[in-house]
Amino acid sequence: MRNICLVLAYDGTGYAGFQRQADRPSIQSVLEECLARLTGEETRTIGAGRTDAGVHALGQVVNFRTEAALPTARFVPALNSLLPPEIAVLAAREVPAEFNARYHAVSKTYAYRIWQSPIRPVFERNRAHHVARPLSLPDMQEAAGHLLGEHDFACFRAAGSSTRTSVRRITEARWCQEGELLTFTVTADGFLYRMVRNIVGTMLLIGMGKRRPDWIGELLAGGSRAAAGPTAPACGLFLVKVDY
Amino acid sequence: MRNICLVLAYDGTGYAGFQRQADRPSIQSVLEECLARLTGEETRTIGAGRTDAGVHALGQVVNFRTEAALPTARFVPALNSLLPPEIAVLAAREVPAEFNARYHAVSKTYAYRIWQSPIRPVFERNRAHHVARPLSLPDMQEAAGHLLGEHDFACFRAAGSSTRTSVRRITEARWCQEGELLTFTVTADGFLYRMVRNIVGTMLLIGMGKRRPDWIGELLAGGSRAAAGPTAPACGLFLVKVDY
Repeated sequence: MRNICLVLAYDGTGYAGFQRQADRPSIQSVLEECLARLTGEETRTIGAGRTDAGVHALGQVVNFRTEAALPTARFVPALNSLLPPEIAVLAAREVPAEFNARYHAVSKTYAYRIWQSPIRPVFERNRAHHVARPLSLPDMQEAAGHLLGEHDFACFRAAGSSTRTSVRRITEARWCQEGELLTFTVTADGFLYRMVRNIVGTMLLIGMGKRRPDWIGELLAGGSRAAAGPTAPACGLFLVKVDY
Repeated sequence: MRNICLVLAYDGTGYAGFQRQADRPSIQSVLEECLARLTGEETRTIGAGRTDAGVHALGQVVNFRTEAALPTARFVPALNSLLPPEIAVLAAREVPAEFNARYHAVSKTYAYRIWQSPIRPVFERNRAHHVARPLSLPDMQEAAGHLLGEHDFACFRAAGSSTRTSVRRITEARWCQEGELLTFTVTADGFLYRMVRNIVGTMLLIGMGKRRPDWIGELLAGGSRAAAGPTAPACGLFLVKVDY
C-alpha cells in the first residue's frame, strides 16, 4: 500500500472549509469523492491545515493511502480532470508509510491580503479583505515585529480551540505592499484556531491609528482574547505552504 | 440637465455582457436600475464598448443625462453602495452636453490574458484562458507585429456584425509575460465584433507551432473569416481603457 502526498491549491469561496462536514461541501469531501472515483477505494485524506470556510490555499498538503495501480505522477492530471475548477492538484509524490501531513508539519506559512482603497476591488473581491480607510503600513510593520519569537498566543486564539498549549514560535511576520494590495506573510511552527485572522484584525486597529504598535506586546504579555482586536474576514486568508 | 460620465470596472462572469437584454442580467441593466434608485429618474446609459458575455472591464466608460441634484462626485460612493460586488464605479465627472461615450471614443485598449501551464489556474479561472500546452512567445510577438497599422480586418470579424467598414488602425499590439501569465495588449481606433478574440485564437495556433507568424499578414491580405483561427474564450478578455 502506497502513501501518497498531494499539494493542492483551492479557492475556498463557497466551501465550508477544508475539513469534511456532514451536510456542506468541503474541500476534503470533494477531494475524497474524486479519489474514490479514480481508485475505486473509499479513501480518507489527512490535511496539513484545517482551513476555515472561505479561506484559500496555494499549497495545502494532504496524504492518503491507496492500493490503486495508478502511477503516482498520474494522480495530478487524473484528479484535475475530475475536480471542480476551484480546486487543483499541483503535485503528487510517494512518501514513507509513516508520513502524516498534519502531525509531521514543522512549519506553515499563511498570507493575508488586504485591498486598501476607497473603491472595492471587483476582481479581488473574494480574495482580499477590502479596507476603505487609509492604513499606516509602518505602524503595522512595527506591530508585526512584536510577533516574532516564542510567545503564548492565547489572546489570539478563538473559542472552540482544544489544543494543549497556546505557545507558538513565529519565525516570519511582515507586511509588503504592491499598489493597493497589502500582504501580511506569517510563518510559525503551528497556528491556533483563527490565530492569523485575529492577529490581522488586531493589526488593522493599529494601522487605523486606534492603537499603538506596542499594543501587540502588551496583548502577548497577558491579554485575553476579549482584549485583542476582531477577527478579520476569511476571504483574505491563504495557506501558502507547509514545510516538513 | 447634466451629462455625467462614469468609469466602470466589472467582472463579467455571470453577466450576459454589457448591453441591456430582454431576459438576462447585463452590466448596463444593473447599472441603470441602480441609477434609477439613486436619481428617481428612468435613466438610459451609453457605453463605449459592448463587451460580450463573460468579458471583463477595467475601464469601461458610460455616460447618462440626469436632472438629479446629487453632486457629481457623490455618484461614485452612492452607486458603489447599490451595485453588486462584481461592478464598481471608479470615477464620475461632468462632461459637455454633446459628449457620447460610444461615438466620441478615439481609441480603445483591450487586454487578453492567457494562463500557460499544465495545471489550470484556480484563482484566475474566470479571468484568464487556460492553455496547457507550451506556446512560443517570440512567434506570437512576431505575429502581433503584423497587426500594426491600418488593415482590413474582415477575416477577424465575427458574423452578425453590421459595421460599415472593416478597416481599422491598430497602434499597439504586443505580448508580455509574467510567470505563467501571458497578456496581449492591443489598442485601435475601433474594433469589429469579436475581433480581439478572433485575433488571439489565430495567434494561439501560431504560438502552438501550427502556423507561421506571417500567416497573420496573409490573412489580412485577403483571408476570409473561415481561413483564420477560432474565437478565444470570453473569460480572458478585458476592456482596459477608452480614450477620447
